[in-house]
Amino acid sequence: MPIYGAIEAGGTKWVCAVADDAGRLLATEVIPTTTPAQTIPEAVRFFLRHDTLTAIGVASFGPVDLDPASPTYGHITATPKPGWANTDVVTPLRTALKVPVGFDTDVNGAALGEARHGAGRGLHTVAYVTVGTGIGMGAIVHGRPLHGLAHPEFGHIRVPHDTGRDPFAGSCPFHGDCLEGLASGEAMRRRWGQPAEQVEDAAAWQLEAEYLALAVINLTYTLSPQRVIVGGGVAKHPSLIEQVRARVLDLAADYPVPTDQAAMDAYLVSPGLGDLSGVTGAVELAHDATKTTHARG
Amino acid sequence: MPIYGAIEAGGTKWVCAVADDAGRLLATEVIPTTTPAQTIPEAVRFFLRHDTLTAIGVASFGPVDLDPASPTYGHITATPKPGWANTDVVTPLRTALKVPVGFDTDVNGAALGEARHGAGRGLHTVAYVTVGTGIGMGAIVHGRPLHGLAHPEFGHIRVPHDTGRDPFAGSCPFHGDCLEGLASGEAMRRRWGQPAEQVEDAAAWQLEAEYLALAVINLTYTLSPQRVIVGGGVAKHPSLIEQVRARVLDLAADYPVPTDQAAMDAYLVSPGLGDLSGVTGAVELAHDATKTTHARG
Repeated sequence: MPIYGAIEAGGTKWVCAVADDAGRLLATEVIPTTTPAQTIPEAVRFFLRHDTLTAIGVASFGPVDLDPASPTYGHITATPKPGWANTDVVTPLRTALKVPVGFDTDVNGAALGEARHGAGRGLHTVAYVTVGTGIGMGAIVHGRPLHGLAHPEFGHIRVPHDTGRDPFAGSCPFHGDCLEGLASGEAMRRRWGQPAEQVEDAAAWQLEAEYLALAVINLTYTLSPQRVIVGGGVAKHPSLIEQVRARVLDLAADYPVPTDQAAMDAYLVSPGLGDLSGVTGAVELAHDATKTTHARG
Repeated sequence: MPIYGAIEAGGTKWVCAVADDAGRLLATEVIPTTTPAQTIPEAVRFFLRHDTLTAIGVASFGPVDLDPASPTYGHITATPKPGWANTDVVTPLRTALKVPVGFDTDVNGAALGEARHGAGRGLHTVAYVTVGTGIGMGAIVHGRPLHGLAHPEFGHIRVPHDTGRDPFAGSCPFHGDCLEGLASGEAMRRRWGQPAEQVEDAAAWQLEAEYLALAVINLTYTLSPQRVIVGGGVAKHPSLIEQVRARVLDLAADYPVPTDQAAMDAYLVSPGLGDLSGVTGAVELAHDATKTTHARG
């Protein structure tokens, strides 16, 4: 009976798990993300305490190198997170555990988990957007995680910014008022002077819904996913998703996206797996790694 | 020796062709797009004058229904073009010619032609943007035309619009100042009072380059294509592509897209097949139709 290892490698914590062939989680452990020299060996020790693995999957914070032909394949590359830039994640795991390692972005992992076991089940083309401290997007297209030149960096798309309504200059260190600079948890914290989860002003959440609706419109008209799943801490705000749906319908102005409320309710949804989308996807990456050592684009 | 039929079904003309197994065009004919009752039979008569076809491919103006499970699969759906809304294109061709019919959007067709024989050769994930009377985008992802909920409607993404610099309200009947409303040939004609190809003011082309650069940034961060091919009449303006490249580099601000000039020159390119991207892609759709009657998402 094959046993799979999985890591949702986040910037603050690594969620490690072992799972059976049906994707059921048999054990999990949360490890704080400190330094590569500490965190990676601690994850290895977790897996060594369990049955021999068949493969392991890693859904990692990024940017990451997903090009199997690259000398830095499996590395976290230009992250601003101290100590983690240019960190090889795949090689130390493969060396210590001697199994195939599947590797992708955290959001492609979450998209894969949702597509196979969550809110995207039965669909071939699905996008997963996370709205937390930052904004990211992963996608399954024709059944496979979306890779091309690199991977989506959806937080950095440009959207209309009405500086009359919202004079905040944006929080992105690269672009100022890109989507992430206007609508991430960090942007909310800086605009309103308190953490997003403490913001209560209805106008603040209307503004957030406006930016997320623009993001969903652009995602829909670019990728044409069959469903858009929106996760992350900021997206948990009560009624935010309903507000985004309403604004998407307004903005679409009867141009083909789901143009009625029932279709929109089915199109733009919360994760089916709650906070387990990423680690569930990492199990699936492990599963796929047994078929090809490198999941190609 | 298999012979393939191909139609690039545009809103003003249908380019019909027959091609050999290597994709070489053996004969072509241009038919004006008048009414379905005239244009479709005229295309049929062209094909009947040639050797028995193995299959036919159609790259069509849209919106089109690409869902093989839909009762209106193979139809042009909600087009504003008089006489063409809800027109079944696939059935009359299949009935008259008795061969499998491949069917996709004009821009997915162009993307497929470019990916297999043009500027995207050897790549698995490629986007083709057309900037003409309207703006459209097709993509090959993991080697296959991108379909999901429907197909990309990239002309209708929202991009920043600095109304101080550009007070034009936009020409899109649905959205006003979406990308197409700001940057299509029709938008240029209405903003500047003359056809785009006659506009000579350098500031007008700088503005055009600005919008197209925003479009390329958003496309890159959403789809992560390995290459972006920009075709269409407006994109033929001398030096426009170079201006777009320069603005993409500025806007990216060292965030990972191709971050140097040489990589950008290879990333953002003109079509390799000139005006034959679409009809070449239609031949490929015919080719693929011999493998599955319906190319699925």
